[in-house]
Amino acid sequence: MRVAVLPGDGIGPEITRETVNLLEEIVRLFQRNIEIQYGQIGGAAIDEEGTPLPKATLQLCRTSDAVLLGAVGGPKWDGQPGHLRPEAGLLALRKELGLYANLRPITVFAGLEGASPLKGELLQDVDMVIVRELTGGLYFGTPKERRRSGQEWEAVDTLHYTEAEIERILRLGFEMARQRRRLLTSVDKANVLETSRLWRETAERLALEYPDVTLNHLLVDNAAMQLIKCPSRFDVIVTENMFGDILSDEAAMITGSIGMLPSASLSETGPGLYEPIHGSAPDIAGQNKANPLAMFLSVAMMLRQTAGWAREADAIQSAIESVLAEGWRTEDLGEPGTARLTTSEMGAKV
Amino acid sequence: MRVAVLPGDGIGPEITRETVNLLEEIVRLFQRNIEIQYGQIGGAAIDEEGTPLPKATLQLCRTSDAVLLGAVGGPKWDGQPGHLRPEAGLLALRKELGLYANLRPITVFAGLEGASPLKGELLQDVDMVIVRELTGGLYFGTPKERRRSGQEWEAVDTLHYTEAEIERILRLGFEMARQRRRLLTSVDKANVLETSRLWRETAERLALEYPDVTLNHLLVDNAAMQLIKCPSRFDVIVTENMFGDILSDEAAMITGSIGMLPSASLSETGPGLYEPIHGSAPDIAGQNKANPLAMFLSVAMMLRQTAGWAREADAIQSAIESVLAEGWRTEDLGEPGTARLTTSEMGAKV
Ligand SMILES: CC(C)[C@H](C(=O)O)[C@@H](O)C(=O)O
Ligand SMILES: CC(C)[C@H](C(=O)O)[C@@H](O)C(=O)O
Repeated sequence: MRVAVLPGDGIGPEITRETVNLLEEIVRLFQRNIEIQYGQIGGAAIDEEGTPLPKATLQLCRTSDAVLLGAVGGPKWDGQPGHLRPEAGLLALRKELGLYANLRPITVFAGLEGASPLKGELLQDVDMVIVRELTGGLYFGTPKERRRSGQEWEAVDTLHYTEAEIERILRLGFEMARQRRRLLTSVDKANVLETSRLWRETAERLALEYPDVTLNHLLVDNAAMQLIKCPSRFDVIVTENMFGDILSDEAAMITGSIGMLPSASLSETGPGLYEPIHGSAPDIAGQNKANPLAMFLSVAMMLRQTAGWAREADAIQSAIESVLAEGWRTEDLGEPGTARLTTSEMGAKV
Repeated sequence: MRVAVLPGDGIGPEITRETVNLLEEIVRLFQRNIEIQYGQIGGAAIDEEGTPLPKATLQLCRTSDAVLLGAVGGPKWDGQPGHLRPEAGLLALRKELGLYANLRPITVFAGLEGASPLKGELLQDVDMVIVRELTGGLYFGTPKERRRSGQEWEAVDTLHYTEAEIERILRLGFEMARQRRRLLTSVDKANVLETSRLWRETAERLALEYPDVTLNHLLVDNAAMQLIKCPSRFDVIVTENMFGDILSDEAAMITGSIGMLPSASLSETGPGLYEPIHGSAPDIAGQNKANPLAMFLSVAMMLRQTAGWAREADAIQSAIESVLAEGWRTEDLGEPGTARLTTSEMGAKV
């Protein structure tokens, strides 16, 4: 397997270092052939090459079987115009690779319930996947610009979806629900948005093909409430790009395990991209404090989904569970009575 | 004071009935002159007049000092095209009256902490106001349509803001922060949206005029997390229409008092509109179970802001506090050891 590794910004490089060690351990233990090649993205790429997604990086990703990303972004580049910001590199990569589906499994790890802001009883049986559309909607629609209107400025972004884009992501939602508890919650704002009305109708139409899956619709404002009120009621949530961005971060925080959650972004035929849900955390970058486990779990997702190596993925997952069960924690997970590890110590333990 | 009362749909009529009783009690106790006139809106107006905002209703509102609204919407009208849905009536009313600022105070009521999904210690000192832009953004931008693109459908909504619209709502945010704890959190998605970048720059520019207010920026996905992680850190949150819709519902749920929270929608010079944050709750409509307290508190906001009658507003607020302190609850607030009241019983108690 050829893996393109893009460390990125902030804590990205330090968690990537541990992740590559982990991959090398997998190679050694399971006699696998994994070829790693590094590429630049985000702020680091802006600094060195003047663009957040250099051509060489895109080329590397296209010719790899999977992409493993740390994180992008930081205050250093906040003043830049839109196309020269670190995030533009990630957005362009998503678009170029056709990564239309972002899968975010939201689970609570045994022993970490205490870190959740929610009452303990609400966390029982929380096990959902958020399926977020990733290459359409407000992120990519045009016009997307600032313009002069008489004496003053105005700005516009465009929320655009074709029926085919909607159908593709909804279908994935139905398929995933079929593999799980057969409950699909489609989130939209159909009482206000035209795109949401097309979304909801398409969901209704597809539901006829999936009689074994129960389809519910929730308005996005209500979804933001229900996620907190009763997170265990959800199995698979499917939604458009911006709603998915907001709701998946909210859901991740609920678990208390935001430093623990991986994600996969998949295309129809090309390489998938695997990355932690958390960001580049510039405030703790370079301090050897960051939690590498979300990126480790992203590797597990990669080995399972792209390579089909379930045994290797299971090994990573159970190593992480053992380390947590023994009471080891990184700083973000710290509770009284647990031992704090640095990024590299946690990497070594796993 | 002339008040236009629009009961609307679902539980709207039953909570409005109690609210009008309350207003009549205020008239009696404080010798005030309050003239009430009813208007139709939402699904009820569609059924009777074929449009969710009849001309007569708009005219009534325009010539009143304030508008008091129950709630609109319900599954009965879900199949309708956009402009014939109950919500279109509320949206048109907001637009026609120029109600650009939606104020949602988020507080935890003594005795109701148990109903929150959050751990008790996180609720201490929660006291914020969400200032949501209400007449711009994705709700009203054009094009907003479904159209044919070759063989398939596509749909588009437009997120549009002028600098003047942004400045107006931000300025209100700064002014409100000045009256409170002097902390303003502006929520945007400046790493992706052009409108958000204009928003953020405008906030930075205005901040120079408000050196006594501390301005913070949060990305909307991060805001959805921070609201749960540490709700007490917020004083005034200001944000655009759709983000405000999502975040204010999330924040309301956090308090455990979603049935308790009022809102005010203000224009530059005309009448304000006062309504509960909660919706029309079609599932319990007509059962005399709904909690009327959010609409009562909306009346208190109306008396304070539109009429300047602080004594009357205080009287409503302390009546509600006493009733809660005595252990009376409606069904939505029920905890063990409290007595359940119907809508009309709760109205009578207050
Ligand atoms: C970094 C940013 C552009 C990105 C997004 O909004 O998609 C991030 O928040 C995410 O969720 O992956
Ligand atoms: C009913 C609906 C159109 C409305 C909105 O989205 O603004 C509601 O959710 C609200 O928050 O007042």
